[in-house]
Amino acid sequence: MLRRTLRKIGSEGRNDCPRSRSLVAAALRANRWMTNSEAPSNGSNGAGPRRAPLSIDTINKRVINSEYAVRGEIVQLAQKIARDLEEGKASYPFDKVVWCNIGNPQILGQKPITYFRQVLALCECPQLLSHPHIREVFPEDVIARAELLVKAIPGGLGAYSDSAGALIIRQLVAKSIAKRDGYPADAENIYMTDGASPAVHYMMDLLLREPNDSMMVPIPQYPLYSATLTLYGGRLVPYLLDEGAGWGLDVAHLRQQIAAARASGLCVRAMVVINPGNPTGQCLSYQNMRDILGFCREEQLVLIADEVYQANIYVGNKEFFSFKKVACDMGLLKDVPLVSLHSISKGFVGECGRRGGYMEVTGFPSEVKDQILKLASINLCPNLSGQICCALMMNPPQVGEASYEQYRAEKSAILGSLKRRAELLVSALNRLEGVTCNAAEGALYAFPKVTLPETAVQAAKELGKQPDWLYCKELLEATGIVVVPGSGFGQADGTFHFRTTFLPSEEDIGRVVQALGDFHSEFIQKYGGLQKKQPALATAANGDNEY
Amino acid sequence: MLRRTLRKIGSEGRNDCPRSRSLVAAALRANRWMTNSEAPSNGSNGAGPRRAPLSIDTINKRVINSEYAVRGEIVQLAQKIARDLEEGKASYPFDKVVWCNIGNPQILGQKPITYFRQVLALCECPQLLSHPHIREVFPEDVIARAELLVKAIPGGLGAYSDSAGALIIRQLVAKSIAKRDGYPADAENIYMTDGASPAVHYMMDLLLREPNDSMMVPIPQYPLYSATLTLYGGRLVPYLLDEGAGWGLDVAHLRQQIAAARASGLCVRAMVVINPGNPTGQCLSYQNMRDILGFCREEQLVLIADEVYQANIYVGNKEFFSFKKVACDMGLLKDVPLVSLHSISKGFVGECGRRGGYMEVTGFPSEVKDQILKLASINLCPNLSGQICCALMMNPPQVGEASYEQYRAEKSAILGSLKRRAELLVSALNRLEGVTCNAAEGALYAFPKVTLPETAVQAAKELGKQPDWLYCKELLEATGIVVVPGSGFGQADGTFHFRTTFLPSEEDIGRVVQALGDFHSEFIQKYGGLQKKQPALATAANGDNEY
Repeated sequence: MLRRTLRKIGSEGRNDCPRSRSLVAAALRANRWMTNSEAPSNGSNGAGPRRAPLSIDTINKRVINSEYAVRGEIVQLAQKIARDLEEGKASYPFDKVVWCNIGNPQILGQKPITYFRQVLALCECPQLLSHPHIREVFPEDVIARAELLVKAIPGGLGAYSDSAGALIIRQLVAKSIAKRDGYPADAENIYMTDGASPAVHYMMDLLLREPNDSMMVPIPQYPLYSATLTLYGGRLVPYLLDEGAGWGLDVAHLRQQIAAARASGLCVRAMVVINPGNPTGQCLSYQNMRDILGFCREEQLVLIADEVYQANIYVGNKEFFSFKKVACDMGLLKDVPLVSLHSISKGFVGECGRRGGYMEVTGFPSEVKDQILKLASINLCPNLSGQICCALMMNPPQVGEASYEQYRAEKSAILGSLKRRAELLVSALNRLEGVTCNAAEGALYAFPKVTLPETAVQAAKELGKQPDWLYCKELLEATGIVVVPGSGFGQADGTFHFRTTFLPSEEDIGRVVQALGDFHSEFIQKYGGLQKKQPALATAANGDNEY
Repeated sequence: MLRRTLRKIGSEGRNDCPRSRSLVAAALRANRWMTNSEAPSNGSNGAGPRRAPLSIDTINKRVINSEYAVRGEIVQLAQKIARDLEEGKASYPFDKVVWCNIGNPQILGQKPITYFRQVLALCECPQLLSHPHIREVFPEDVIARAELLVKAIPGGLGAYSDSAGALIIRQLVAKSIAKRDGYPADAENIYMTDGASPAVHYMMDLLLREPNDSMMVPIPQYPLYSATLTLYGGRLVPYLLDEGAGWGLDVAHLRQQIAAARASGLCVRAMVVINPGNPTGQCLSYQNMRDILGFCREEQLVLIADEVYQANIYVGNKEFFSFKKVACDMGLLKDVPLVSLHSISKGFVGECGRRGGYMEVTGFPSEVKDQILKLASINLCPNLSGQICCALMMNPPQVGEASYEQYRAEKSAILGSLKRRAELLVSALNRLEGVTCNAAEGALYAFPKVTLPETAVQAAKELGKQPDWLYCKELLEATGIVVVPGSGFGQADGTFHFRTTFLPSEEDIGRVVQALGDFHSEFIQKYGGLQKKQPALATAANGDNEY
C-alpha cells in the first residue's frame, strides 16, 4: 500500500521533475526496510492511531511493565535522602546512606586490586612506558603485561576492536577457561561484553520471536531476567528454589513447570541458572548440574548459565564447577547449547563501573553464532578498558612474578573479609525474632525470610504495596540502610524476604547489623508483634494482587 | 490457562506435601511476569510449536533481517584477508588491509589527545596522585582535574555510578552544553551512554510499540538506524537527501513522505536527523534546521538529532548549530521532544574503543524520562572511563592552564590534517571517470556516486548482489582498501555509491587515492567501459529485487 501511495505521489504534480522522480523511486527502494520487516500486511493498515504525541500513555507498554527492583522505588527514595543529607536539606536519624541494595563493593570502600589498575593506567597512557622513571613506579610484570596488550590490541584502547572483542583478549580469556575446566576453549566462542547484562540481551533478542516464547527462570531470581523478558515481549516460566533445602533446585519440579508451560501453549526456549545464586547465594552440587544438563538436552533448551559469582565461594565443603566443564564431562558439549556468563563486576574484583565481562557460547550452530556477532556489531564493540580488565581477572599474576605477592594478599584479604562479614550478618539475622536465613555459600548476598506482623501486612495492603516493601522502606527511613524487597526477586507465596549485600566494610558491618536488629524489634513491636500462625499471613498475601 | 494448569498440578499427586504446595503457590505468584506482559491471551495458545531446537530457522527473524553494512560481508572478507596476511597463509597484491569502512581513527594511527589519556591514567590508578615523582610526569592541571574527578565520583572508576551517569559528569557535560548554545542545560536531562548507540536503542524501546510504529530516517543513512528499526520490529519511513543539491534536506518532501506513510496506516513517531551527515558529510543550514523543527512540532514527532560529528566542520562558510540551540531560539524547547546525541568516538577525539557518549533529552514529559532512567538502570550504568572521557572532551583545558597549548596543538593538527585529507580524497574522486563526489563539509566520510558499466551491473545481478557491492569487493581484493557499498546506507534508485573515510594517515592517503584510481580505471575497463546513457542502469537496477 505504501508502495502504491508513493508511486501515486510520483505520478502526480511534480511528475516531470527529474528530482522528484528520483526521490520517489529511491523512496520505493529504501522502502525495502519497511516491507522486509515482519510487519503483518493485514487489516491493521489505517486502523491504528496515525499520530501519537509523546506521553506516558503513548510509549511502549513493555517498558512501563518491566521492573528492576535492584534500582527501583526504594533506591530512588534512598538517592533523594542521600542528596538531602549532602545538601543539609532535611534531618534523618542517621548521617549516611548505606548502600546494601546492589553488589557495588568499591562504593563501600573496597579497594581495587592494584595490579589491574596499574596495567590499565599504562594501557591508557602508553607514553608512560617509555618514561625514564617508569620502573620506579610500576613493577616489572605490570610493565610487561601492558606492553604486550598495547602492542597486541590494534589501535590500543582508543580504537573499536572486533565486535566480539580484541583477538588477544579473547585468546587470553579462552586460555584461562581451558585452565579452569581442564577442557579446550576457543577464542571464536568468546564474546566480550560490557558487564554480563548485554549477553542476556543478546539471548533475548535471539530466542524470543513472539509473545508465547518463554524462558525458565529461578524464583527468587536476579530481576535482570524478568525485566528483560518483559521488555522483549517474552514470558517467564518460573521454577522455584526450595528455601527449606538451602535453595535447592529440584529437577522433578522443572519437569512439572515445563509441562505446565507447554500445556498452556508456551514455547520454552531456554533455562536460566544462576550459580552461585543471586539473591540466594547457594552453590549447586556437581550432581545437580548433571541433572540440569540432562533436562536441558531432553527438553531442547538453551542453558544460560549466569556464573558471575564463580570466584566467591565461602564454605569449605562446596566447590564451583562451570556448566561447561560438567557438559564436557558428560560428553554433552555439542548437544546442549550453552551460554556461560562472567563479569568483572562481582567477586573480589568488584570493578563494576568499568563494565566488563564475557560470554562463552558452545553447542550453537555456526549460523546462529554469526547472528550473535551481527548483534554485537550493531553496538560496534564492548569498551576496551573492560575487555582488558576481564583478561587480567582471568590471567592474574603468577607465582614468581613481581606483583604476585601483593595480588595474592589483596585477593585473600577481600575474600576472607567477605566470608567473615557473610557469617556475621547471617548469624545475626538468624537471631532476630521471626527471621531465618540460609548460609551464604557464595555470591555477595543474604536473602533472609522475615515473618511480618499481620498488622504490617494489612498496612502495606492499604498502601497498595508489598509487605516486604513496607519493611524495607521503614528500614531505610530509620537507619539509612538500603536493601531490596524480596518481592522484587520473586518468593514463595505468603513469605517475605529482603536481599542485602554483606559489603559494608568490617568497621561498618557491626553497626549495620546492630541497626538492623534494633529496627527489626521496633518494627515488630510497632505493628503489634508476631502471631504464632504463619498460614494467616499466606492468606492475606494471596489476596494481594499488587505483588 | 497456565494459572489453571499450575493449580491442577497443585491439586494432584503431591497435594499433601507442604513443599509442593508452596512451590505451586509461588509459581502462581511468580507467574505475574507471564500474565502481566502484553502477550495476547488469544487463540494462539497451543497453536504454535511447543519446542524449537536452536537453529537458524528457529531464531528471531528480526535479528536475521537486520543489516549493518559498516561491519557487514565486505568487512568480514577483509578480516579474513587481514588474518591471512598476518599468518602468511595466502598472497594478495598488497601487504596490508586499509580500514576505510568505519570511522575508527586510532586504528589508522591517529594519536589520542594526551590530556584525556593523562587524566584517565590517574583516575585508573589514584594512588599515583600521591607518588613523590608525580609532578615530574603529569602537568598541574591534569593532576587537579583527576583529583577533582576521583573525589567527586562515589567509589571512583570501579563503582557503578547512577544509571544516568555520575552526577559530577552530567554537571560538567550540562555546563559545556550551556556554553556551546548560550542557553541553560540541566544535568537532569543528561544521560551518559556507552557511545551514542545505546541512546538510539532507548528511543526504539520507548517509541516502538507495534509493527506499524515507524521513524523517518534520511536516505542515505547511518545503518544503525535501519538495523535497530528492523530489530525492534518498527518501520522505516525514508526521506531522501538530494545529492544534486549537496545532500540538501527538503521539508516539502518530508511532508509528502509522512503523508504517504500515514495513508498506508503507519504511525510515525520520530524523525532522525544526522548533522553533520553520515555518510553524506553535509552540514545543515540554520534556516533548514528551523524548518525541520517546525515540521516536527506540526507533526508531533520526537526529533532524534544525531550530532556526533559536531566538532568536525571543514568548510569556512558552514557552522554547526545544535538543534537544542535552534529550538531555544524559536521558543520551541517545550514543544518538540528532542534527543541530542553526542559521542567521544568521532571527530578529533576519536576515542572509539572507550565507548562514551551522552544524550540530552528536552521536551519529554517527566514520567517518560523516568522510564528512560529505568531502561538505563536495567543496564546498571555506562562505563566510567567513557563517562570521564566525555566530560573531558566537553571541558578541555582552558587558556592559561598547563595543558592548554599541547591540547590546542594536537586538536588543530588532527582537524587540519583531516581537512587536507578530505579535500585530497574528494578532488581525486571527482577526477575519476563517471565519479562525482560532494564536498565533505563535516564528519569523516566521502560518499561518491559511481557510474558503473552495464556489464558490471549484470554480473552483480547474476551473483544476487548489488552492483556497488561487487565494486567494493573487487576494490578490496585488488588493493586491500575496505569501503562500504552505498546500498548499505540507501541511495537513490539506479545510482551507486560507496562510503569511505578519509582517515588513512597523511603518509598513506596519497597511496590510497592512487590505488583507488588505478583500480577504478581497471574495473571500468574490465567490464567494457561506461555507456553514455545513465537511465539504462536505472532500469536494470529497478529490476533487481535483491537490493
